[in-house]
Amino acid sequence: MDEIDHTAVIAVRKTAMTRTEMLIADIRSQIIGGALSAGERLPSVRCYAAKMQVSPSTVVEAYERLAATGMIRARRGAGFFVTGSHQPPLNLVEKNVDYQRDVDPFWVSRQALDADRDVLKPGCGWLPADWMPVEALRKAMRQLARSDASLLCDYGTTRGATALRRLLLARFASEGLTTPMEQIMLTGSGTQALDLICRFLLRPGDTVLVDDPCYFNFQALLRAHQVTIVGVPFTPTGPDVAVFESVLSQSRPRLYITNSALHNPTGASLSPQTAWRLLNAAREHDLIIVEDDIFAEFEPELSSRLAIPDGLERVIRMGSFSKTLSASVRCGYIACRPEWIEGLTDLQIATSFGGPSPMTTQLLAAVLSGGSYRKHLDEVVRRLSKARKDAVERLAALGITPWLVPRGGFYLWCRLPAGLDSTEIARRCRLHNVVLAPGNVFSVSQSAGEFLRFNVAHLSDERVYSVLKEVMAACSAGD
Amino acid sequence: MDEIDHTAVIAVRKTAMTRTEMLIADIRSQIIGGALSAGERLPSVRCYAAKMQVSPSTVVEAYERLAATGMIRARRGAGFFVTGSHQPPLNLVEKNVDYQRDVDPFWVSRQALDADRDVLKPGCGWLPADWMPVEALRKAMRQLARSDASLLCDYGTTRGATALRRLLLARFASEGLTTPMEQIMLTGSGTQALDLICRFLLRPGDTVLVDDPCYFNFQALLRAHQVTIVGVPFTPTGPDVAVFESVLSQSRPRLYITNSALHNPTGASLSPQTAWRLLNAAREHDLIIVEDDIFAEFEPELSSRLAIPDGLERVIRMGSFSKTLSASVRCGYIACRPEWIEGLTDLQIATSFGGPSPMTTQLLAAVLSGGSYRKHLDEVVRRLSKARKDAVERLAALGITPWLVPRGGFYLWCRLPAGLDSTEIARRCRLHNVVLAPGNVFSVSQSAGEFLRFNVAHLSDERVYSVLKEVMAACSAGD
Repeated sequence: MDEIDHTAVIAVRKTAMTRTEMLIADIRSQIIGGALSAGERLPSVRCYAAKMQVSPSTVVEAYERLAATGMIRARRGAGFFVTGSHQPPLNLVEKNVDYQRDVDPFWVSRQALDADRDVLKPGCGWLPADWMPVEALRKAMRQLARSDASLLCDYGTTRGATALRRLLLARFASEGLTTPMEQIMLTGSGTQALDLICRFLLRPGDTVLVDDPCYFNFQALLRAHQVTIVGVPFTPTGPDVAVFESVLSQSRPRLYITNSALHNPTGASLSPQTAWRLLNAAREHDLIIVEDDIFAEFEPELSSRLAIPDGLERVIRMGSFSKTLSASVRCGYIACRPEWIEGLTDLQIATSFGGPSPMTTQLLAAVLSGGSYRKHLDEVVRRLSKARKDAVERLAALGITPWLVPRGGFYLWCRLPAGLDSTEIARRCRLHNVVLAPGNVFSVSQSAGEFLRFNVAHLSDERVYSVLKEVMAACSAGD
Repeated sequence: MDEIDHTAVIAVRKTAMTRTEMLIADIRSQIIGGALSAGERLPSVRCYAAKMQVSPSTVVEAYERLAATGMIRARRGAGFFVTGSHQPPLNLVEKNVDYQRDVDPFWVSRQALDADRDVLKPGCGWLPADWMPVEALRKAMRQLARSDASLLCDYGTTRGATALRRLLLARFASEGLTTPMEQIMLTGSGTQALDLICRFLLRPGDTVLVDDPCYFNFQALLRAHQVTIVGVPFTPTGPDVAVFESVLSQSRPRLYITNSALHNPTGASLSPQTAWRLLNAAREHDLIIVEDDIFAEFEPELSSRLAIPDGLERVIRMGSFSKTLSASVRCGYIACRPEWIEGLTDLQIATSFGGPSPMTTQLLAAVLSGGSYRKHLDEVVRRLSKARKDAVERLAALGITPWLVPRGGFYLWCRLPAGLDSTEIARRCRLHNVVLAPGNVFSVSQSAGEFLRFNVAHLSDERVYSVLKEVMAACSAGD
């Protein structure tokens, strides 16, 4: 029943009740109270304006807004009528989160994405909004509000704006990867970039390699493609190369998906030796590698990449801007062989009708090319370094220890004290409004039951530690 | 080589060259001219500021912006260095459009989406930007620039903002379709809505019914799902019911995809008798129907729908805001059985990580709930009515006649004079910078070779008619 209030709030943020709103409230109460019933005609604009001592345009505004909610309806030349649809639909509020569903990759995504504001999310995979370049975004948005109608209203081109692609190519070039324009395309998001790649390269029944542990949504996405997922144990310098080579011989996988820099969930980065051996094995067995570079900008110094020595022959570089710029201005990219870009572009047309919108790419290009972005990144790297140190100390007091301390990014992959099950801990902490990311949602082999992935940027609130302490004590006591 | 100019344009639209830009131009010319070479350190901020008689902060701004292009790079505590990546990558401009590729559904999409500004697009499927509610969008964007950081930086919830879903439910209720909140979700676009539905319901090898002719991208999308596509001949009152019933008995299709109102490409609307028979046949053969309602808001009066009598039992309602509000603020919706929404939500998490962004849904909700939107629609309906009448007259002068004159929307499905092939006409017109939509890209049976789909909102330019006339004359003469 709060529909009118709600839409009014959108239109007139932070101001007192206007005349229009008073009229809306008046008519609404007449309809709900039964003074005006379904099918009945509303007073004419002129009459009602005279009665309420307002201008006719105020009445028109009020009637239009009520019509936008469906409560009344205009009939051409005949005035406005009550529709009879003012009864609220069966259920206008969201169902409560189902805490009891299985703790699988979707559990973590749903808990973190749909959490209310009072929920703490040390298990989520992004920075708090106030860590992002908010002022630069506001400025870019004000500029956008004054720009060409086509930026505000047209579809995007099939590969996305050249301005933003040029900025990415400049970054690639500064890393030593010279890439022509026809080898890069923009997508609706990083996840959609990977989805397009999988659609383009995989068929149901193919085998795909991932790290064990790996980003949980890689598994959810690969299951949607009905492929066989094989995990390679992950070490502090990358995947276990001996296992990697033997899986390549035995299972002939089509694809390997990884984060070379600041790996999710461990925060580890690939060593140059591992990179070299992976590339050689890939060439020998005709394996394609997807290198998701989404955490690249958190690196204090560039670490080893597969795409750079490979020159985008069999390595596909992808990433997005969600972690360092905004997750609300969604856009991803793919850089790979030019003939693959052609096929991926057709797939993006078929499944999204074009690339990311001009509005999106313009906002991103404006922030990236503004002078403040590099400073923002430096500041984030500094803050993360401090937050990481604090988190390690405070978690240690609970007997929770990191597998390694990463050189950048916001993840800490931590081991619980012996005997505790992270899935059970996560389920119980959720009841106390703390969302955690338990180890096994990241593990193909389900061998990470004693691990949790923490996000150090979401670990400053004391309540996280007190809830964890309480829940761990209850679990230890077998409650 | 125009990289710097380009990014500068983004940052300082429509103003004279600033001090920062002069510094950028100076350094850039030193690097390109060889006065500063790869690896060399730039002058310190203090020195360069003194030399150029500007403030140190102006120098920092210039260095930061050059760093954003990759031309120079900061090393912590050591200053800025030339990267050596100022050589342009192999090809920084887009390849020319390939006019010679097959005239298939992708041909039309690519030509229309990637066309330069000087290209006329009577074959495209959207309104010109200046027909859209641009002022309302600008206002909503200015409001958004002042809103919470979380709207600007966070991911969207898994089903999309409740504010926008409520507005849609109010519209549904005003049409007589009462839908609870758990039966609607928002998606990244209308195309993505259909893609999610197909992923959820179809397996490779399934049979899917479409109208013949139908929106060409339905075919492109269905091919990506590797299903068998069967076309049902379309009549001025909907699909041919006798054929529809017989295909249902023989081929046991899983899904039928259609536009009931203002069908693409013909502009026809379903009659109540056809709606009734389709629904009965669907129930008898356990067929699911996707009703793409994307042109709904162009209707002068509500026509027959399948979803309304069915009550979302076996009919899935979907649509978007791209045709009437903005194609740059992309968002679609799906309304269907609640248990399907659950599955579709998981699929959207796996393939897009959440629903449309808070920025997107906030902009749409603000425009939709503002008082001016209904007026905008009325005005568009009026303009289209006039444009349609003009187009019919002017095309008649060329011997091009509509299959029917639609009651709304922007499409005109037209027959060419006997003996002319619309694919050949489209290919030749493209060389004269006119993008057309030839009949067979819409036709599963390839039986629409004498048809073209026109968009009356893109038919006001005299050049369209003169190019058409010239090309038709050349084709008739066998040139």
